[in-house]
Amino acid sequence: MTYDWTTSGPDLHVALASLGPRHAALEDAVRGAIREGRLAAGTRLPSTRALAGDLGLSRGTVVEAFAQLVAEGYLDARHGAGTWVADLSLAAATAARPLERPRRAPRFSFSPGLPDLTSFPQAAWTSALRQGLRAMSAASLGYGDPRGRRDLREQLASYLGRARGVRADPDLVIVCAGFRHGLSLVARALKAEGADTLAMEDPCAPQHRVVAAGAGLGISPLPVDALGARTDVLTASAARAAVLSPAHQFPTGVVLHRERRAAAIAWATASGGLIVEDDYDGELRYDRQPVGALQALAPDHVVYGGTASKTLAPGLRLGWLVVPPRMLEPIVSMRYGEDVHVPALEQLALCELLRTGGYERHVRRMRARYRRRRDRLLALLAERAPVLAPVGISAGLGVLLELPEGGPTSAQLIEEAARRSIELHPLDPHYRNGRAPRDGVVIGYGAIPEHDFEAALSALGDLLAASLPA
Amino acid sequence: MTYDWTTSGPDLHVALASLGPRHAALEDAVRGAIREGRLAAGTRLPSTRALAGDLGLSRGTVVEAFAQLVAEGYLDARHGAGTWVADLSLAAATAARPLERPRRAPRFSFSPGLPDLTSFPQAAWTSALRQGLRAMSAASLGYGDPRGRRDLREQLASYLGRARGVRADPDLVIVCAGFRHGLSLVARALKAEGADTLAMEDPCAPQHRVVAAGAGLGISPLPVDALGARTDVLTASAARAAVLSPAHQFPTGVVLHRERRAAAIAWATASGGLIVEDDYDGELRYDRQPVGALQALAPDHVVYGGTASKTLAPGLRLGWLVVPPRMLEPIVSMRYGEDVHVPALEQLALCELLRTGGYERHVRRMRARYRRRRDRLLALLAERAPVLAPVGISAGLGVLLELPEGGPTSAQLIEEAARRSIELHPLDPHYRNGRAPRDGVVIGYGAIPEHDFEAALSALGDLLAASLPA
Repeated sequence: MTYDWTTSGPDLHVALASLGPRHAALEDAVRGAIREGRLAAGTRLPSTRALAGDLGLSRGTVVEAFAQLVAEGYLDARHGAGTWVADLSLAAATAARPLERPRRAPRFSFSPGLPDLTSFPQAAWTSALRQGLRAMSAASLGYGDPRGRRDLREQLASYLGRARGVRADPDLVIVCAGFRHGLSLVARALKAEGADTLAMEDPCAPQHRVVAAGAGLGISPLPVDALGARTDVLTASAARAAVLSPAHQFPTGVVLHRERRAAAIAWATASGGLIVEDDYDGELRYDRQPVGALQALAPDHVVYGGTASKTLAPGLRLGWLVVPPRMLEPIVSMRYGEDVHVPALEQLALCELLRTGGYERHVRRMRARYRRRRDRLLALLAERAPVLAPVGISAGLGVLLELPEGGPTSAQLIEEAARRSIELHPLDPHYRNGRAPRDGVVIGYGAIPEHDFEAALSALGDLLAASLPA
Repeated sequence: MTYDWTTSGPDLHVALASLGPRHAALEDAVRGAIREGRLAAGTRLPSTRALAGDLGLSRGTVVEAFAQLVAEGYLDARHGAGTWVADLSLAAATAARPLERPRRAPRFSFSPGLPDLTSFPQAAWTSALRQGLRAMSAASLGYGDPRGRRDLREQLASYLGRARGVRADPDLVIVCAGFRHGLSLVARALKAEGADTLAMEDPCAPQHRVVAAGAGLGISPLPVDALGARTDVLTASAARAAVLSPAHQFPTGVVLHRERRAAAIAWATASGGLIVEDDYDGELRYDRQPVGALQALAPDHVVYGGTASKTLAPGLRLGWLVVPPRMLEPIVSMRYGEDVHVPALEQLALCELLRTGGYERHVRRMRARYRRRRDRLLALLAERAPVLAPVGISAGLGVLLELPEGGPTSAQLIEEAARRSIELHPLDPHYRNGRAPRDGVVIGYGAIPEHDFEAALSALGDLLAASLPA
């Protein structure tokens, strides 16, 4: 007997013994695969017709084998729905393992790092994707430029120029998998050219310290005060590169003061240093004219990094760098030997959203929504927790609440919040030594679904009124 | 005057001077942005109404400013379609740069690394995505597990078990951006734990040597003969890890002989070595029962790597690893500090395609199509180039043609092909020293669009008949 695996290969890897009745050989092979765990419970088997064709058996032989395996409890036949691998563990009570109980999610999450995921523009995204697919050439689905599609880079350069004042040449735009990925690429390129430390704001996003460590770089902490990061100390330091979030420092929300901006640029131009500008929420500002990107002041010394994680969703894993010419080749080479580029279909969809203005429409809608939330939160705090003075309120998705003397610690407040099914985040882990000079919590007002926001606020108000000194 | 950037922020970064008439301040700002290149030619400006609202100006002021800028040639107003930044370079002939002329693509590409991109199942993919989006929870769009979604890993584990005989625990599946990305993750994890060389088949895909170099690993070449890679020499080598393509060696197409499979497993288990199994085209086999994955023989010593690049499209940047338990933590940590995970929407779509059987349906359709092509190609070669003995014909998307003595060199043949607008690929670069022991070309029959295949074959036949000795 020859097996014809070709015309409609079964995608079921079974090796049939060459002796004995064919139905028994098939039974043995399937039984073995199930016992060894290669065919998992719930797997749907090919139809008897397809399998018979694939294995060069008669259909009757396969039907017979399946019937036997159903009788033995290895397979489940659901009338008209096909044949499935049975869950043997249900049958064998002795094999039962205790179920892992998932941690119950809190009712209200004030996570500072997330936008409202329920507001992701699903319809606009899928329609942009469909449109992008329709307009593309088939070559778009092959291996492409590690920087991303040319048309997307042009759209991004244009958008970043008008929305954030970035000086962006499409040739120097690199589409990447979110800011964290961009930072990792830059950090590893710096390491490869001999750098050993990276100056980073302290506090900052703790994951960014993980990125630096992953790249093999030490961290030189840059304190943050009311004027933003202490860029004035860079000149005296040995740092060759610094990560800054000038538009809206994370997590303090401070806008980098113009003297500090000037100091950063002066350091970079005089010493040949590199600034990595983390513009994670540059589009989300509420009260005043936005601060333009630092990058525009010294494009040869600043890597600009932006992301769709706050404007659309982190799950997209989409971000972008605008790099100085000298950084282009090292990063492109690196990606050629790693992920190659961001998926073509995501690029097509984002390009289309930018081209049609759909991206900016969404940003404007979300900006208005987040501003309303911010205003509601500030009003609530003034009413129910007047002892607090919220910090960093002009932009972004969160505020910092420093806790007053004589009240609960952040750990106590977070514990009481958890009892009320409210998730709050401490300030401490944002500091390199794990300890904020002044105890506090970071309140994210973006993560909560719109329909739940008033209820969440009210629960937060009750918590704070009950916990804080008057 | 206060600027309200909030309710419908302009996404146009202009800083208005605080003195002088408002329309003049706006003109200056826009003019400056265009001159400095921050507003690129072709950029669409916000509507006068939106911009007026954003800047706290009267609409008349904005209309006046725009009219002035149109008169000066900075802007183009297209009736009813909005206002755009004009192409100043067209106006200024002195600034004209010579246009880059793109290299003309050949009429017929026999690239060995690509599937037929025109066959990408666009409708199935977008409908799977829509379905996946409908069924997901909003949290799916947040930061997720670096390995990928649990449901996708379960689908992959089940699919790989039945289609390729892989022993896959969903906990040990890592969704990544194609095989190259997976190899990079493994190579860098090995480097971090002290490895300094990687044994690699010689010949192999040249990009994989770039990956090894990018990870800081040296390469220990593993010769390939008629039985496949010389895994029998591993024991005598210092290698701690080896990359193999056992099901269908690239580019020779040899299937690893069972003794060589046994030798590889014996080496790995005795020495604690790690095998990285490149199963790049494991689903595409034509003549015989497929060789199951090597991984099933020693799951604790083999990283299995697969990809959607040949079954769907490389542009998706989707692949998967099944790793031994000890490799899980290092790779997950690495990704936490880099790309975090593969985009959520791609994961949703692939999961849905696997769940509904759409993925396997597509694989079967393409397998049948590629087999027909392979058969047509072999028939053509027998007729028009009988001097050739094609190698590696049982699977995949390509065959190796070793060139006979007394005929053209591969360089000559490729040059003649290019004259006829046919793209052929030399065997040489697949070898580490850039020189094949026997000169040849690798013919990929996957890349050509279906409708063009007969014409491509006929052109290839003419080329070979004209170039080769009888």
